Amino acid sequence: MPQYNPPLRDLQFVLHEVLDAVGTLKQLPPHADVDAETIDAVLEEGGKFARDVVAPLNPVGDAEGCTLDAASHEVTTPTGFKDAYARYVEGGWPALSCDPDFGGQGLPHVVNQCFYEMLNGANQAWTMYPGLSHGAYEALHAHGSDEQKRLYLPKLTSGEWTGTMCLTEPQCGTDLGLLRTKAEPQADGTYRLTGNKIFISAGEHDMAENIVHLVLARLPDAPSGSKGISLFVAPKFSVNPDGSLGARNGIYCGGLEHKMGIHGNATAQIVLDGAVGSLVGQPHKGLAAMFVMMNAARLGVGMQSLGLTEVAYQNAAAYAKERLQMRSLSGAKSPEQPADPIIVHPDVRKMLLTARAYAEGGRALAVFTTLLLDQELASDDETVRADAGDLVALLTPIVKAFLTDNAWIATSACLQVFGGHGYVREWGMEQFVRDARINMIYEGTNTIQSLDLLGRKVLGDNGAKLKKLGKLIAGFVEDEGVVESMQEFVNPLADLGEKVTKLSTEIGMKAFQNPDEVGAAAVDYLRVVSHLVFAYLWARMAKVALEKEGSGDPFYTAKLATARFYFAKLLPETAALIRSARAGAAPLMAMDAALF
Amino acid sequence: MPQYNPPLRDLQFVLHEVLDAVGTLKQLPPHADVDAETIDAVLEEGGKFARDVVAPLNPVGDAEGCTLDAASHEVTTPTGFKDAYARYVEGGWPALSCDPDFGGQGLPHVVNQCFYEMLNGANQAWTMYPGLSHGAYEALHAHGSDEQKRLYLPKLTSGEWTGTMCLTEPQCGTDLGLLRTKAEPQADGTYRLTGNKIFISAGEHDMAENIVHLVLARLPDAPSGSKGISLFVAPKFSVNPDGSLGARNGIYCGGLEHKMGIHGNATAQIVLDGAVGSLVGQPHKGLAAMFVMMNAARLGVGMQSLGLTEVAYQNAAAYAKERLQMRSLSGAKSPEQPADPIIVHPDVRKMLLTARAYAEGGRALAVFTTLLLDQELASDDETVRADAGDLVALLTPIVKAFLTDNAWIATSACLQVFGGHGYVREWGMEQFVRDARINMIYEGTNTIQSLDLLGRKVLGDNGAKLKKLGKLIAGFVEDEGVVESMQEFVNPLADLGEKVTKLSTEIGMKAFQNPDEVGAAAVDYLRVVSHLVFAYLWARMAKVALEKEGSGDPFYTAKLATARFYFAKLLPETAALIRSARAGAAPLMAMDAALF
Repeated sequence: MPQYNPPLRDLQFVLHEVLDAVGTLKQLPPHADVDAETIDAVLEEGGKFARDVVAPLNPVGDAEGCTLDAASHEVTTPTGFKDAYARYVEGGWPALSCDPDFGGQGLPHVVNQCFYEMLNGANQAWTMYPGLSHGAYEALHAHGSDEQKRLYLPKLTSGEWTGTMCLTEPQCGTDLGLLRTKAEPQADGTYRLTGNKIFISAGEHDMAENIVHLVLARLPDAPSGSKGISLFVAPKFSVNPDGSLGARNGIYCGGLEHKMGIHGNATAQIVLDGAVGSLVGQPHKGLAAMFVMMNAARLGVGMQSLGLTEVAYQNAAAYAKERLQMRSLSGAKSPEQPADPIIVHPDVRKMLLTARAYAEGGRALAVFTTLLLDQELASDDETVRADAGDLVALLTPIVKAFLTDNAWIATSACLQVFGGHGYVREWGMEQFVRDARINMIYEGTNTIQSLDLLGRKVLGDNGAKLKKLGKLIAGFVEDEGVVESMQEFVNPLADLGEKVTKLSTEIGMKAFQNPDEVGAAAVDYLRVVSHLVFAYLWARMAKVALEKEGSGDPFYTAKLATARFYFAKLLPETAALIRSARAGAAPLMAMDAALF
Repeated sequence: MPQYNPPLRDLQFVLHEVLDAVGTLKQLPPHADVDAETIDAVLEEGGKFARDVVAPLNPVGDAEGCTLDAASHEVTTPTGFKDAYARYVEGGWPALSCDPDFGGQGLPHVVNQCFYEMLNGANQAWTMYPGLSHGAYEALHAHGSDEQKRLYLPKLTSGEWTGTMCLTEPQCGTDLGLLRTKAEPQADGTYRLTGNKIFISAGEHDMAENIVHLVLARLPDAPSGSKGISLFVAPKFSVNPDGSLGARNGIYCGGLEHKMGIHGNATAQIVLDGAVGSLVGQPHKGLAAMFVMMNAARLGVGMQSLGLTEVAYQNAAAYAKERLQMRSLSGAKSPEQPADPIIVHPDVRKMLLTARAYAEGGRALAVFTTLLLDQELASDDETVRADAGDLVALLTPIVKAFLTDNAWIATSACLQVFGGHGYVREWGMEQFVRDARINMIYEGTNTIQSLDLLGRKVLGDNGAKLKKLGKLIAGFVEDEGVVESMQEFVNPLADLGEKVTKLSTEIGMKAFQNPDEVGAAAVDYLRVVSHLVFAYLWARMAKVALEKEGSGDPFYTAKLATARFYFAKLLPETAALIRSARAGAAPLMAMDAALF
């Protein structure tokens, strides 16, 4: 069975040594009293919970899956899932970054995000139950009426109830404009919802006494397309004004999907059979409200893949140090044993270092982005809020798409380290790969993320947000460009920065002639810009490691070696991506659809 | 359920229009009478068998898997597998390319290979039963005694019996030198085999009355390491001199692996409990004999991945033409419908064309290589045999590693085209991805393939084999370099050819100083050389398509568009690979193993 060790040391390195999280957070009124000791203590306890309670259930969930009782529409989660969730609630974990007005602990989002990396590294399928719930909390917190907040937020904060996002329907995934679920206004101010939803993660389960469904539907007078969608809250059991549970609502699970992975999570077909709901926010403005949830969820999906990358790396590295097979090409390294441990082989190291560089770079990116999110949400300086918000908008599709694509590469590479044993269930490596695959799809496919980045976030404001990122990087290049030992990191960073500027302009010009140029370049473009951000963060991490290398702590030696690996072996991918992006739309659009 | 359509038109294109297979085969004495009509008729019938009999069992095999009766050690294959195999035997398919002296039809290997692409496209797990059997046939045909051939080959040729390769043990996968299974000579000239084998594909099943196991083991006086391994044949039921079945032999299935994919194939733990076997070939020369089988198997694994790439493409293309979602960025293409089919979106086309270019390029490479194999095995001209043999040796690791890595990329891209539906079992796309994953591992991991190519096949003879490939390509470049319409294909081909020469020399020089440079560069190097071969074959295909484009047959239009896509969007990968290869061993080897 795979093991999971919370990467506390590396989290602390990124939070405190590289990004000075406490310094940033202290500027924000709600977090003025935060200190490193508290953050570290929370993460240490959270790490124990992830390692000891949640991780052991990962193979169990994969083997058992969820079961639906067709008569009662009730779902049973895998053995142990319910108990672990009860302990999660007992521990107060759902409240970590929730609003104190509703019983939350009010800690910064960045702390919650680091906690979620660990939960996901331990067990993505289990973590989706509280994860989706937190998304529903965010949407109601931002757009709910006072009464909706009063009824739902305390129970979502305590974790006694969980939440879902009911968006997708059989005919509409990416294209929510095709949504058909109907909402009919009732005399009492409520709505009756009728329709069929699919792919509803954590849509039904036995962990909580109530499930708060957030549902997209159309009002009778709704305009067609995506401008006619409204958001409703429809609980599994109706909630009386005093907060007690009332009648079973007409919203139930009609089936569970059989999936490639995340078997422990119930992916439900949800039938709305005249379910009673109340409107969240304004009529026809449901998509905007849902996007509060969606943006948080996209960062959350990045955390899922970061967790998988880390746990896959840990287990592959341990195996590579133990498994004896062949001799090193440069002479036996363990002559006393019948063969050398496979970590002597350069390509085994390449596979491991790929996963390691993606995990550590991804962690830096996640913390960097979520610190900006805390600034966006809690600063009392309007300029700080606006700048941080722009960077969060730019970085969200990168966190989602780059980290999930990287996890697919990394978990597969780590499986490969195990040879045939990686393909066999008992080692657990193939589960990481299967679980990782969904992350490239849900909460907006990675193609959609790339269109969001290039079309909306970069070209949509003539590069204003991109320039803010560029300014950060240029400042770092200017400061460090004169430091001899930093040349190996700063030079390729500066070079790539120039190339991104050129490429962005070029695509922008081409897009004037032909909008398909955006769609043709977007996926390559996202990966190029992602590498720019990674190179920036890896250079910052290298700077700290260089400064502290003399301390004798091998942590810094390893960090520096991983940074050098990243620049030597992974960053060069941009050369191919830029060529492919520049090749444009013609090679894609030439062939008539009928000829495919 | 996914559909499979045999790609007969494209097979004919490659065989007849691009590579003039009949012209080559007619030069070979055993195939002097071959004609295109016979080849096409065999493939047409074979395609029907794959489509109608084998393909419908693919989801069945995945869902049911194999079951072991612990008491009897007998394995039951999924519903329908046994019947399909009976029809395969009835149809005479196992005999296709077998030696007429033992009941075979004596057709060229290239015909059998094309047939196997189709079987694998239909159902990889099922196809492994006859596939492994054919490998055992090859090894016995090449190294068996007259008596062994008399006893086993007719039944393997007819398919009444099947065969296996028993190599791997728990402590030895890649490193067969660590093998422990013992062979003790008996007074009657037989041997008693004792040990434990794992990962034995098709190792036990209910399809045939006997299973002919080829087993690697050590004789009592064997030198340690890989030079002390001998090959034995040990049937499930002993075979009497008259060919009838005798006693149950002490070789049985002790367990079945639970795997990520290929559930329909029984991956057996094989216990040898004093099993009676006879020596195949010379004592201590078992590895060399096994490599006859292994080289054929490596090409066979390439066919598995080619089949998966093709079937994944077919289903994703069909879905993309039907699924309505969003509007084209360049304006609605199906204004009469609520949304456009997703094939209007550039990145959907990119995913599809990636799979298509890998399938069609892979098919050309497979046919090209197997035609060379037919020349190597059947030419009466020693120079032709030697040259063809050198190219087959060079191309075998490329077929194995490049086609299997590409299938991993392609099946995953095709899954992505389905969005969330791709992650759900009922659509079948995720099975293709899970099945494809093992192909990068077994019959020598892709890292081993790359070391075989760079270390043994290229540097091992100072580039002599590579020069033979280079000469072929240079000849084509010279002939076509003057043709205006071929510039777009010939120029990048010539350019890459020069880069490969430079890169090979550079790595060779560095390897003198440090053998780890070979291991550090090998995987990148294999992919670069693979693209060189692909670019050569795509240019040859483009040449034919250009010549025939005027015919009005849209097949050529599509071929040309796919060629242009390959050169514009996939070939640029070499820019990154060459940079990574040139970055050398230092970034991989710097970190102490303990710090991983």
